[in-house]
Amino acid sequence: MNSKVKITFLGGVGEIGKNMTAIEYNDEIIVIDAGLTFPGDDLPGIDIVIPDISYLEANKDKVKALIITHGHEDHIGAMPFVLSTLKVPVYGSRLTLALIENKLKEHPNIKFKGVTVKPKNILKIGSFTVEFIKVSHSIAGSLALCIGTPAGNIVHTGDFKIDYEPIDGTITDLTRFGELGKKGVNLLLCESTNVCRKGYSMSEKSVGRALEEIFKSHTEQRIIVATFASNIHRMQQIMDLAEKYKRKIAFTGRSMVNVSEVAMKVGELSFNRENIVDIEKVDKMADKEVCILTTGSQGEPMSALTRMAAGEFKAFKLRQNDLVILSASPIPGNEKNVYNVINALYKLGADVIYDELADVHVSGHACQEELKLIHSLVKPKFFIPVHGEYRHLKTHKELAMGLGMDGRNVVLPSLGMQVELTPNSIKEAGFVTAGQRLVDGIGIGDMDSNVLKERKQLSEDGICVVVVSLNNIKGEITSDPFIITRGVVYADEQESFVQDAKACIIASLKESDLRGMEPSVIKTSIRRNISNFIFKRTKRRPMIITIVTLD
Amino acid sequence: MNSKVKITFLGGVGEIGKNMTAIEYNDEIIVIDAGLTFPGDDLPGIDIVIPDISYLEANKDKVKALIITHGHEDHIGAMPFVLSTLKVPVYGSRLTLALIENKLKEHPNIKFKGVTVKPKNILKIGSFTVEFIKVSHSIAGSLALCIGTPAGNIVHTGDFKIDYEPIDGTITDLTRFGELGKKGVNLLLCESTNVCRKGYSMSEKSVGRALEEIFKSHTEQRIIVATFASNIHRMQQIMDLAEKYKRKIAFTGRSMVNVSEVAMKVGELSFNRENIVDIEKVDKMADKEVCILTTGSQGEPMSALTRMAAGEFKAFKLRQNDLVILSASPIPGNEKNVYNVINALYKLGADVIYDELADVHVSGHACQEELKLIHSLVKPKFFIPVHGEYRHLKTHKELAMGLGMDGRNVVLPSLGMQVELTPNSIKEAGFVTAGQRLVDGIGIGDMDSNVLKERKQLSEDGICVVVVSLNNIKGEITSDPFIITRGVVYADEQESFVQDAKACIIASLKESDLRGMEPSVIKTSIRRNISNFIFKRTKRRPMIITIVTLD
Repeated sequence: MNSKVKITFLGGVGEIGKNMTAIEYNDEIIVIDAGLTFPGDDLPGIDIVIPDISYLEANKDKVKALIITHGHEDHIGAMPFVLSTLKVPVYGSRLTLALIENKLKEHPNIKFKGVTVKPKNILKIGSFTVEFIKVSHSIAGSLALCIGTPAGNIVHTGDFKIDYEPIDGTITDLTRFGELGKKGVNLLLCESTNVCRKGYSMSEKSVGRALEEIFKSHTEQRIIVATFASNIHRMQQIMDLAEKYKRKIAFTGRSMVNVSEVAMKVGELSFNRENIVDIEKVDKMADKEVCILTTGSQGEPMSALTRMAAGEFKAFKLRQNDLVILSASPIPGNEKNVYNVINALYKLGADVIYDELADVHVSGHACQEELKLIHSLVKPKFFIPVHGEYRHLKTHKELAMGLGMDGRNVVLPSLGMQVELTPNSIKEAGFVTAGQRLVDGIGIGDMDSNVLKERKQLSEDGICVVVVSLNNIKGEITSDPFIITRGVVYADEQESFVQDAKACIIASLKESDLRGMEPSVIKTSIRRNISNFIFKRTKRRPMIITIVTLD
Repeated sequence: MNSKVKITFLGGVGEIGKNMTAIEYNDEIIVIDAGLTFPGDDLPGIDIVIPDISYLEANKDKVKALIITHGHEDHIGAMPFVLSTLKVPVYGSRLTLALIENKLKEHPNIKFKGVTVKPKNILKIGSFTVEFIKVSHSIAGSLALCIGTPAGNIVHTGDFKIDYEPIDGTITDLTRFGELGKKGVNLLLCESTNVCRKGYSMSEKSVGRALEEIFKSHTEQRIIVATFASNIHRMQQIMDLAEKYKRKIAFTGRSMVNVSEVAMKVGELSFNRENIVDIEKVDKMADKEVCILTTGSQGEPMSALTRMAAGEFKAFKLRQNDLVILSASPIPGNEKNVYNVINALYKLGADVIYDELADVHVSGHACQEELKLIHSLVKPKFFIPVHGEYRHLKTHKELAMGLGMDGRNVVLPSLGMQVELTPNSIKEAGFVTAGQRLVDGIGIGDMDSNVLKERKQLSEDGICVVVVSLNNIKGEITSDPFIITRGVVYADEQESFVQDAKACIIASLKESDLRGMEPSVIKTSIRRNISNFIFKRTKRRPMIITIVTLD
């Protein structure tokens, strides 16, 4: 009997974000997660990045299910794009599915069939069995998976941490991981985000205790808390504190309003609705009665907190003596934006408390000792680290080897890699098409597109457009060249620059005999001359566009 | 007698970098530091940012001296620009002046008169006395200042930390700070970089101990250490370890080669020259004999380490099993570049040790307890926190108030602010012109220049150039419009895009009666139509350049 199972990595390996893994047996594929990532400065003008799913598109009929471990954007953000191709049921916890449905509101043409699952559920999907296992993470309703396959059990941790004081009362199901380990797990796919951090992650409740100290010692000021809209348990703690300290809660920021609605609807957030007030009414309330929950903890340019800091938020005006708590850490790359917002808040006269000054945030990902615990319970035969840059995956491999794993039983995955698993072997089996799809306005493009290279050059060196009209029969220039630059010369040099550039073009054209000359040759000559002229003048090489019109 | 002293903040307040402060009495000004800052992503194509010194230029004849606390770029980087206007002597330690001279090599027209000073020196400069005080920092030859003025003593800490195990054997001169405190200090200007960090900074020697553990346990591999070229004491420790573990040292990266030469010349770095080898010879040596000191610890795109990681470094090829140590932390904003380099090094098969994995770096700036120590010794009447973003300055004010300082005796400075100090008072006294000068290629521009706005728009939305030839007497288009886009549409859509855009322009022109119409009116109409066309198609608003030529 064929017992070969293929695992294909379409996202989340060699990178943080846009997680997606496919598990395949004969003509059946189940897909785990469909996330996005937010573009860095190397992708100017791009809105979001999603996995290239050419492989799934080419094997559309094989795909039987999408299984979503939790509702973070790096796990559900590509759903609208994936579901427009793959018409398959989506399995996830109640909150996860509710967040996907909320996201799909903007895509009314997409049909969505959600199947709600709970921890301990075991479903049969084709030749696979899928068991859902409760884990703690920075969003409620997070699940790990144990996938029974003809090649043995595959445990996928999703994203997780181990929290002995979880807000929802149930810890990561260590017992079940242990039982599965005892029964036999052939392959562990384990997340690697915090594998470089020693020790343990702190409990979510420790944040609640730090926040309570702040609520207790700041009884007269308005309190504004910025945090991740998806961190339901953080929100729950803040709402509980508001209630305890007799403050009303106002939500602001689109995702905060949306997610809190969704979470209350599915029962993941419990709060007396009478204690919720509209943000517009806050200015009429006594300071000590106010607690605002807002987005913008990453200093996102258009977020509510950023606009408050800039004095541009209409619904509510921040003022001197307000207390702002940033209950979050800057995600790498966001530091400058976050600190800009903090500086602006201070300048408005607000008090600001953030992670450098107090313990108002904890990570949702397992650190080294927690990862060791899971490895020790699951005791897999084979191991593939996932969810991390190469350095994380490499360090995770070393961690596993430190626990006794044979290095030959570990595969370091990369984008598009396909791994073949049998009950007794694991091996790399080539690559499929994979990578980034860039969502930009309404277009979806490919990574190596010229568009981005062009934008980058434009942003660094600007552009110079030269238009020359010629009569190449008579061999003469028929009108003064047009020269337009953008992003090249400073205003006060513009006039003399254009004059000299024109002179340079005319002089260079006069040197050649233009009669019968091909426009493309003339263009190249103009481009070379003007580029050298500009480089001499500005030490820059802007993009040059030359247009030669023939009369 | 007039005893009013003015302090003008030209850089380093409300920001990290480009430090510069002027102290003025009647018609005498002394300037402390002249630094640069490296531009963020908000300044595409800009090379460096220096202070706007309009105020000093307008008061050129008053400026008597430039006093440089140490040789980091954020303290000396603007020297070539400042010295081209201000022809005054420059005071600094031997290493500081040697680094400035090295920088001025590229500016042979600038005359430089350096005055070498040592700790404990007291000089008279006009009405001021300037005393130099030894401090520890991440560069050798760092000095704090006590400036005697008619308004009393002003202590400026420069950048410093307190290190009880300094590599050069002399600790920050706490005794002298205490003596000055006892004599009476009217104003303290104290750096604020690490004011948000609790506790103490670790000793530089602790890095040496961590590095020795690595050298001891990696005896067979080649060792490549990347660190800041200016951190002479770090270099000294690595060179000592190389000698102890029988490895030869090769320097690579322009600034590493330059600074090590300069530092050896002035005696701040001591090493047996026979143990230095040329980087080109390394490949012929046994692995265990090799130690390379390189630039690139910040993942700078053109640095030696980045090029090694990319396999593009000619002098030396990194290979499997090499050990790379990044003895540095990523400066905020550089994280992605640094991690990209680490990932690339791992992929080449190298071992990598960096600050997340081992204690291979310490900060050169005082943390909270060290700052408290200096405040407690100096016991100033008035206090102005410097060298930090607003959040740092604010937190530093709170730290001082925690030690008993009256909040009314603290001024929070901002760029261009002028403060008036008398023996018994301090007050804000307005603002002078100050800000950023952007050095870009060979031009120096101003912050709000259109060039940058244009580059930003270009980078996000691209550009579309439209050229239309008309005969506005006959009222007809005389040739097909030219349409060229850059950074707007993806390659496979380009052709149909251009066709449709042309059709759109032709249609819109045919709607109007072009006879006698002003070219500017025609241009505006084309721009509006094409902009709407592109927006509908791509949800982007690229820059539009319209050129109308009349036949």
